[in-house]
Amino acid sequence: MESEWISQLRRRIGPHPAVPLGIGDDAALVQIGAASGCVVTVDMLTEGVDFLLAAADPRAVGRKALAVNLSDLAAMAAQPVAGVVALALPRKGGMALAEALYDGLLPLADRYDLAIAGGDTNTWEGPLVISVTLLGKVGPGGPLLRGGARPGDRIVVTGAFGGSILGRHFDFEPRVREALLLAERYRLHAGIDVSDGLSIDLARLASESRCGAVLWPHAVPIADDARRLAAQLGDGSTALDHALADGEDFELILAVEPHEAERMLAEQPLTAPLTAIGEFVPERGLWQVDAAGRKSPLAPQGYEHEMT
Amino acid sequence: MESEWISQLRRRIGPHPAVPLGIGDDAALVQIGAASGCVVTVDMLTEGVDFLLAAADPRAVGRKALAVNLSDLAAMAAQPVAGVVALALPRKGGMALAEALYDGLLPLADRYDLAIAGGDTNTWEGPLVISVTLLGKVGPGGPLLRGGARPGDRIVVTGAFGGSILGRHFDFEPRVREALLLAERYRLHAGIDVSDGLSIDLARLASESRCGAVLWPHAVPIADDARRLAAQLGDGSTALDHALADGEDFELILAVEPHEAERMLAEQPLTAPLTAIGEFVPERGLWQVDAAGRKSPLAPQGYEHEMT
Repeated sequence: MESEWISQLRRRIGPHPAVPLGIGDDAALVQIGAASGCVVTVDMLTEGVDFLLAAADPRAVGRKALAVNLSDLAAMAAQPVAGVVALALPRKGGMALAEALYDGLLPLADRYDLAIAGGDTNTWEGPLVISVTLLGKVGPGGPLLRGGARPGDRIVVTGAFGGSILGRHFDFEPRVREALLLAERYRLHAGIDVSDGLSIDLARLASESRCGAVLWPHAVPIADDARRLAAQLGDGSTALDHALADGEDFELILAVEPHEAERMLAEQPLTAPLTAIGEFVPERGLWQVDAAGRKSPLAPQGYEHEMT
Repeated sequence: MESEWISQLRRRIGPHPAVPLGIGDDAALVQIGAASGCVVTVDMLTEGVDFLLAAADPRAVGRKALAVNLSDLAAMAAQPVAGVVALALPRKGGMALAEALYDGLLPLADRYDLAIAGGDTNTWEGPLVISVTLLGKVGPGGPLLRGGARPGDRIVVTGAFGGSILGRHFDFEPRVREALLLAERYRLHAGIDVSDGLSIDLARLASESRCGAVLWPHAVPIADDARRLAAQLGDGSTALDHALADGEDFELILAVEPHEAERMLAEQPLTAPLTAIGEFVPERGLWQVDAAGRKSPLAPQGYEHEMT
């Protein structure tokens, strides 16, 4: 029963200093503690698109629902503060499913000192839907936007790309700490996280910045998963194709002024590698240069929700 | 296509002073403008439970998705500031449906000067899900909680109850302005909005306040819809039964000290009537007294999501 579930969740989640009033009232009260305002992001995951419950551990689904949102805060260089969770659960087995989702979600919340401030738990005849909204705060430097890249800036990425479907799309670590550290130590002009695909998300960053981007394909860090997936599929797609198009890598793409980028790459301040994979240019659009320096258009590839 | 939809929405929604950064980045930036923190609430509506698309105008569904959340802010005596909207749309016809949902939602947002700061638009093979998260702010008096009722306080309600299924559950006006006005002019001890049913929500308020509530059934303001519904159904249920159990009235239940309640009721500062329908008592539980003053237990009735 719904009320039992809420009581149980309330006991389980307990108090948090950022949330003077949490689960159990009509709304929650969150202390953001930043004069610069409150960063807010929402991401909804749906059965059959973002996961298959028949194949996935529901704890991994709960973890992912939070992690994709944390990745959005990372892309803003924002510190997570609190979140709310809305669920549409199948009626049969909904209680056990909700528990398993929270089993996956809560340890990740703890890891980032994120308070779960409230939520809305529904049951229905449909498949599982989980929607997480996060609130965060940014430092005095303000949020890291998509629109700040300037021609000449280097394209710097964290980690490696491609083949996340082999498992990384569930167990990736959102780049929250990395983003906060980089934003503190270096001047970053712009940033985005790779959810839909390296090439499509890079194109979005460039477009928001009203400039273009030239990718150096030979420099793109390719995940082992991308190689494995290309080999498994045997459909002529290369590991690089997967790195550019697969998405759900949840790595960061950053725009960094060339000297600053040089310093970052030399210092390598993260456990994850930082790699320059191209540069922003005045001419709009997405481009690639081959080893011989020949420039050609590159079609942005990645996931887009079909709508008709 | 998703990106076209986002561009279109971005043009349509435009800038708002409370949202320095809105739709189009990884997250939005919201200026809450209240040192006391940020009130946050989320409510998800699902096809088949909260509405039937076959029978309902999707604009009414979009309006309701926002209105139920505004009602939660009203129940906290909080001023709406900004919101984010997450959608799971059926693939076929998703674009037209999304437009219609926003056609219903945006005028209501404007009416309360609420900024739509961002969202997440998904398509899938399932039915429509719409989840709205709102941020609000409270005045120096702080939020109106469920837990503040004291034995002796009067139970005061706005408006009338029952039969909302005949249409009011779509076109009700959330009691945002009423709550702000009452919180400013009177000392309110506690408050809740009636979403699941007058009796069940009253029982929740009493339970959070660690006291009981005695209802005066003869004093309950009964909506014309409740009478119409009782007559239509002809199943022996009375209009009062509907007033106590139907839910989705989205009226306020308030706990107010007796003298203050007297003043409120005499002044009737709202367009909607204010009515005293009982009092809070030390003994836990929900009770009713008949016209002869005999007290008996009253079973809380209303909607609860079934979970097994």
